[in-house]
Amino acid sequence: MIDLFVTEKVKELGPQVKKFIDDELIPKELEILSKPFSESQDVLNDLRNRVKSLGLWAPHLSVHDGGLGLNMMEFAILSEEMAKSPLGHYVFNCQAPDIGNMELLEKYASQSIKDRFLKPLMQGEIRSCFSMTEPEYAGSNPVMMGTVAEKQGDNYVINGHKWFTSSADGSAFAVVMAVTNPEAGPYQRASMIIVPTDTPGFNLVRNIPIMGEVGDGYISHAEIKYENCVVPQENLVGEEGAGFVLAQERLGPGRIHHCMRWIGISERAFDMMCKRAATRELAPGKKLGHQQTIQNWIAESRAEINAARYMVLHAAKKLDEVGTKAARLDISTIKFYVADILMKVLDRAIQTHGALGITEDTVLSFWYRHERGARIYDGPDEVHKSSLAKNILKQYGI
Amino acid sequence: MIDLFVTEKVKELGPQVKKFIDDELIPKELEILSKPFSESQDVLNDLRNRVKSLGLWAPHLSVHDGGLGLNMMEFAILSEEMAKSPLGHYVFNCQAPDIGNMELLEKYASQSIKDRFLKPLMQGEIRSCFSMTEPEYAGSNPVMMGTVAEKQGDNYVINGHKWFTSSADGSAFAVVMAVTNPEAGPYQRASMIIVPTDTPGFNLVRNIPIMGEVGDGYISHAEIKYENCVVPQENLVGEEGAGFVLAQERLGPGRIHHCMRWIGISERAFDMMCKRAATRELAPGKKLGHQQTIQNWIAESRAEINAARYMVLHAAKKLDEVGTKAARLDISTIKFYVADILMKVLDRAIQTHGALGITEDTVLSFWYRHERGARIYDGPDEVHKSSLAKNILKQYGI
Amino acid sequence: MIDLFVTEKVKELGPQVKKFIDDELIPKELEILSKPFSESQDVLNDLRNRVKSLGLWAPHLSVHDGGLGLNMMEFAILSEEMAKSPLGHYVFNCQAPDIGNMELLEKYASQSIKDRFLKPLMQGEIRSCFSMTEPEYAGSNPVMMGTVAEKQGDNYVINGHKWFTSSADGSAFAVVMAVTNPEAGPYQRASMIIVPTDTPGFNLVRNIPIMGEVGDGYISHAEIKYENCVVPQENLVGEEGAGFVLAQERLGPGRIHHCMRWIGISERAFDMMCKRAATRELAPGKKLGHQQTIQNWIAESRAEINAARYMVLHAAKKLDEVGTKAARLDISTIKFYVADILMKVLDRAIQTHGALGITEDTVLSFWYRHERGARIYDGPDEVHKSSLAKNILKQYGI
Amino acid sequence: MIDLFVTEKVKELGPQVKKFIDDELIPKELEILSKPFSESQDVLNDLRNRVKSLGLWAPHLSVHDGGLGLNMMEFAILSEEMAKSPLGHYVFNCQAPDIGNMELLEKYASQSIKDRFLKPLMQGEIRSCFSMTEPEYAGSNPVMMGTVAEKQGDNYVINGHKWFTSSADGSAFAVVMAVTNPEAGPYQRASMIIVPTDTPGFNLVRNIPIMGEVGDGYISHAEIKYENCVVPQENLVGEEGAGFVLAQERLGPGRIHHCMRWIGISERAFDMMCKRAATRELAPGKKLGHQQTIQNWIAESRAEINAARYMVLHAAKKLDEVGTKAARLDISTIKFYVADILMKVLDRAIQTHGALGITEDTVLSFWYRHERGARIYDGPDEVHKSSLAKNILKQYGI
Repeated sequence: MIDLFVTEKVKELGPQVKKFIDDELIPKELEILSKPFSESQDVLNDLRNRVKSLGLWAPHLSVHDGGLGLNMMEFAILSEEMAKSPLGHYVFNCQAPDIGNMELLEKYASQSIKDRFLKPLMQGEIRSCFSMTEPEYAGSNPVMMGTVAEKQGDNYVINGHKWFTSSADGSAFAVVMAVTNPEAGPYQRASMIIVPTDTPGFNLVRNIPIMGEVGDGYISHAEIKYENCVVPQENLVGEEGAGFVLAQERLGPGRIHHCMRWIGISERAFDMMCKRAATRELAPGKKLGHQQTIQNWIAESRAEINAARYMVLHAAKKLDEVGTKAARLDISTIKFYVADILMKVLDRAIQTHGALGITEDTVLSFWYRHERGARIYDGPDEVHKSSLAKNILKQYGI
Repeated sequence: MIDLFVTEKVKELGPQVKKFIDDELIPKELEILSKPFSESQDVLNDLRNRVKSLGLWAPHLSVHDGGLGLNMMEFAILSEEMAKSPLGHYVFNCQAPDIGNMELLEKYASQSIKDRFLKPLMQGEIRSCFSMTEPEYAGSNPVMMGTVAEKQGDNYVINGHKWFTSSADGSAFAVVMAVTNPEAGPYQRASMIIVPTDTPGFNLVRNIPIMGEVGDGYISHAEIKYENCVVPQENLVGEEGAGFVLAQERLGPGRIHHCMRWIGISERAFDMMCKRAATRELAPGKKLGHQQTIQNWIAESRAEINAARYMVLHAAKKLDEVGTKAARLDISTIKFYVADILMKVLDRAIQTHGALGITEDTVLSFWYRHERGARIYDGPDEVHKSSLAKNILKQYGI
Repeated sequence: MIDLFVTEKVKELGPQVKKFIDDELIPKELEILSKPFSESQDVLNDLRNRVKSLGLWAPHLSVHDGGLGLNMMEFAILSEEMAKSPLGHYVFNCQAPDIGNMELLEKYASQSIKDRFLKPLMQGEIRSCFSMTEPEYAGSNPVMMGTVAEKQGDNYVINGHKWFTSSADGSAFAVVMAVTNPEAGPYQRASMIIVPTDTPGFNLVRNIPIMGEVGDGYISHAEIKYENCVVPQENLVGEEGAGFVLAQERLGPGRIHHCMRWIGISERAFDMMCKRAATRELAPGKKLGHQQTIQNWIAESRAEINAARYMVLHAAKKLDEVGTKAARLDISTIKFYVADILMKVLDRAIQTHGALGITEDTVLSFWYRHERGARIYDGPDEVHKSSLAKNILKQYGI
Repeated sequence: MIDLFVTEKVKELGPQVKKFIDDELIPKELEILSKPFSESQDVLNDLRNRVKSLGLWAPHLSVHDGGLGLNMMEFAILSEEMAKSPLGHYVFNCQAPDIGNMELLEKYASQSIKDRFLKPLMQGEIRSCFSMTEPEYAGSNPVMMGTVAEKQGDNYVINGHKWFTSSADGSAFAVVMAVTNPEAGPYQRASMIIVPTDTPGFNLVRNIPIMGEVGDGYISHAEIKYENCVVPQENLVGEEGAGFVLAQERLGPGRIHHCMRWIGISERAFDMMCKRAATRELAPGKKLGHQQTIQNWIAESRAEINAARYMVLHAAKKLDEVGTKAARLDISTIKFYVADILMKVLDRAIQTHGALGITEDTVLSFWYRHERGARIYDGPDEVHKSSLAKNILKQYGI
């Protein structure tokens, strides 16, 4: 009953993406996740080449740029399928943070930047990262930022301390948020600047251990010190001082991407929960799924995932039709709503698996650890809720 | 963003229904609810006549039958508006249990039954009730039923004990579920029989006090003893032994009707919560709505109501397109999901109103009391959840 | 395992109180609650006389004052037993709001006030009320108050608008909070003054309908207009301007009284839930209690009620040992914690009873309606939580 | 206000334990946890020696056995302090699973077993493990077990497949549950047998990766294949066929130990949450702790932890006074109740820390990962709830 959203393109591509994930990625996922990312690079490259040869590469990109030319709603439906295995988006080259950088550069970068950075990114030849969050300042208040980019001659000299620069390890470049106009109004102070990671002064301090995992390569979250890091001013993305506006524009679709992904994860966890319930024996002839508590979890999860999907698809459609800004509250709404459902469904799936559920013998544990951040990254629940409520209350006069 | 569901008819009728509820019913609602139903009968009849004169009567009925010829999805959207005041559906003559009886008789009654009972019901000249639940048997297991209808000559002689026969007080007739074929399989034993309430042996024992309110007339729930109650066999609705099949068919749309109504109630409660938050002062210049807890409630309620509405509209559309039976699990899903959200939103709205919230000075208290049953009537949450889960698990082999 | 708290007195009195409630009150409770309070007055007086003759009268009062001389912790244990039927405390003459007024007058009233008002109150010859909450001001901010008492000669002339003056109907006097010192600091402005209800200008506007019930006599909540209501200055309780200090002192034990009562209600609801689970048949041989969902509710309720009782008894003991002020945060903690558990347990008990649960055929519905206010009266949850947290955070330097 | 439980011994020892944890362990904890256990062995041995020299070694052991001679309730209070750092119990040599094995062998092992295995265990010279759970059978039904020990001459020959044999890596011996009497009744089939880990056929297949961490040494959970593993029959602990009875007796105190530990973890997480709330700035002068949502979390956590502590201490006291068996339901109750609170408090503490909360830069992430199992190990919540409810319902006749 999501027929309302299924277009001709989706009808054609959806089953292909699903088949690829089911047949080619899921069977390898535990093997891939059990090793450092660098050791799985070859396997993943093979998969990426398979995707290309099947004509499924980069569904979010325009046909002109080598993609499938989907709108947000169509991409949402495919994205759910990709999300059923942790590296699904990666093998289709529509993974965060690269997808956000592609959208950004496509729209706001100069031709020379596009040629140098965007094209190889679209081809999957390089990776990139987005360097905004700082340990010293609350991410929920974006106008507090310590990183500065000072003009010297034709260059910017960047100094600052960032962390949660996801996937920086092995990236070719970072899009860095830095204050360029300290005297301007709070939302006009920062700019986005491209910094190749081989620039002297781009110092990757460490991959931050997250939930027990240091990670590497694409699966990592770096702490970075920018120390007198010099880049030419032509590396500016968009206008000077437009950093927050661009960040907002980047985050809008980004949040929808996350929600789509969370629904795919939830569906996979749901499927695993049902399989386990249908096969695990408590006593001869008595399956786990005969227990009413498990039945409650299955029913509640089914309802919640359905609800989440409808909300996300409606928001994606709205974004397609009237733009990111007009869909801002819809996006805030799904951000906290779907993250909550994801956590609930994962938790129930783990509990249904018992001891197995906390091992790495299933993919549930990976998500349980990696997606606890879902309620934090790109704006914690609390910020999205207050923001939504304040906007609603405006209509009531406060 | 429910544009996906808004048809031409809805576009035209929706605002009219909303205007009527806002301008003519809501201003009178506390006055009406503060009196016995019988004392408000005149006011309500006036309102019904106004509805008729505006051409908005009985939106669920076909144009041929004097209604607006809406499908379920269209009706759902209007129904939400009607639900914003407790007697909204009543003044449009699409209130439970009459609406269910109309749907039933329209489809399964003989012409003479239609002439005698359905037509005046459609006109709003009489009311009716549905007599199924029995105090001695768990409603969650419909095949346990003590009421029997024995054939004697051309008649049925009915004996049994029912309760929660809603709105029996003042009704012209009851549709009674009774065992006619005790030897048949458990789901083929019962039949539906029309019993005029003036039949000797139709003994209304009492209007059961519910949540502090005895009620009367339309707003009442009767306990009834059928004691050698004789009706002609032509009062049978549908085939003998088809009682459960018909009940299921009656309950399907009935559950969607409830869900629609609950969303309307939730929206009204949400609106009241926001109004209160925007106006109640905690200290000079500090409004209740500045408190983050209230903001959380507003945001969570907004998300949950949106999700509920999408689910209900999708289910209604599915029912329109592929029928009650095929939409059965969707209906089970929304039944428990939306009832839960209704209770949460009402609870938050009451808490936001403080002491005022528990008085009858707002309509919240009426709903808090009357709708606690939402998680029980037409199948308790637990039954719907198990039923949904068991069906899902079938696909996994158990 | 509450032996740690069971004193000799409790060991002796506890079973007697329990027996009285079980044998003499519970069998009459539905009958009593089904009528206006005034019509049950005789039955209740008989019960009160029985209590007196058994030597169980007014357990909270000192032996000198005709009571049982229990400390707060001992009273807590007995109070739980009394709470198992809605009028339990009433028949032992330790019901709110009279108990709070007794504690207050005992400590702060002049001898003449004691002779005139306190003694008959202790004897159960009269009832009283406490008139603080005002509709125009948020109760969560006690310094906002519109009622004023101006001195004229030897009198106070009181003007103001109060509501939720519980049990005012039929009371002999009210303890009224009114601003006497408008120029003082916010917490030194108000005083407590005794106003006999037959004073001209004491205008009981209405018993406010609460959750569907207007109520009368002891079971009522009045809206009152004080219009040039003249009382002698000797009716002042405590010092002028001490109103808030006294209110705080009155509310401390009052909140413990409520919590004790809520635990008794929860235990009764729990018992009813278990009985229903053990007897209601879903199918031949299959009881409701065989369902795992019901088992979850029973287990969770058992754990929560135990936890609540331990917390309340520890808080009561602390109050006995170090006083209301030192136990303030413990009292805030149990106020919101136990109210929440009460609502959960009542809700589960109702759901377990199915349709029966929402009728007045059990006492659950009475509590569901009457105790929704538990999360609001004497400080809403939100205020107690913030207050507790702010006090904790003080130790962390903010 | 836990004075009711504080004995002279606790008064003396409590502050010493707290001081040790605060001053000597917590400052080293992140360093220790960031390395493989084997690399931290020296640091931990130093700490253990310090504990010995301070006379705080093995608080649970009798003075005769070199311990502090505490009862369960006294140990509970100290245990909370130790739990504030992940290896607290380890440095005091009262860590699971060794503590359970010590209790078991002390009571049921022959003198020669005691000399050979128990004494060095008590001294901290060796470690041990408990080998019960099997991957092929649901742990919630202990009578389903595939491991068998066949008698051959004076030996047992053990074959079977176990996992979640925690801390097996580096242990000197395992206590293995194996079926010795397959023809006996379901609860009389299994026995406990000591298997030195250097016995041929004791094959440690792998340390199972749990929540992203393979672990090693004490911090690990092994999968083990017993393949024709031969041990002398004198390695039997207790009587043949007594395995389940002993397991039950071992698990009783074990569950209390866990609960105590969880309360300590919750307190530490609470403290970290408050510190973060009091220091993290959202805007100049505006701290995280000024946000009402954070205040709600602090207040709710405070209430819940207090409630949990009271319940655990009462259960421990009961176990001391009337034994494990009589306290069985109290233990089931705290098992699921406290695990739930632990998860809630950890989750709130993480959310309060934002991005920092999901890193390994605080200890929260370690617990979030390692304690997700709390709701599973030693009996999943669902089993304890059903078990408690069924026992309660027995008193109601089913």
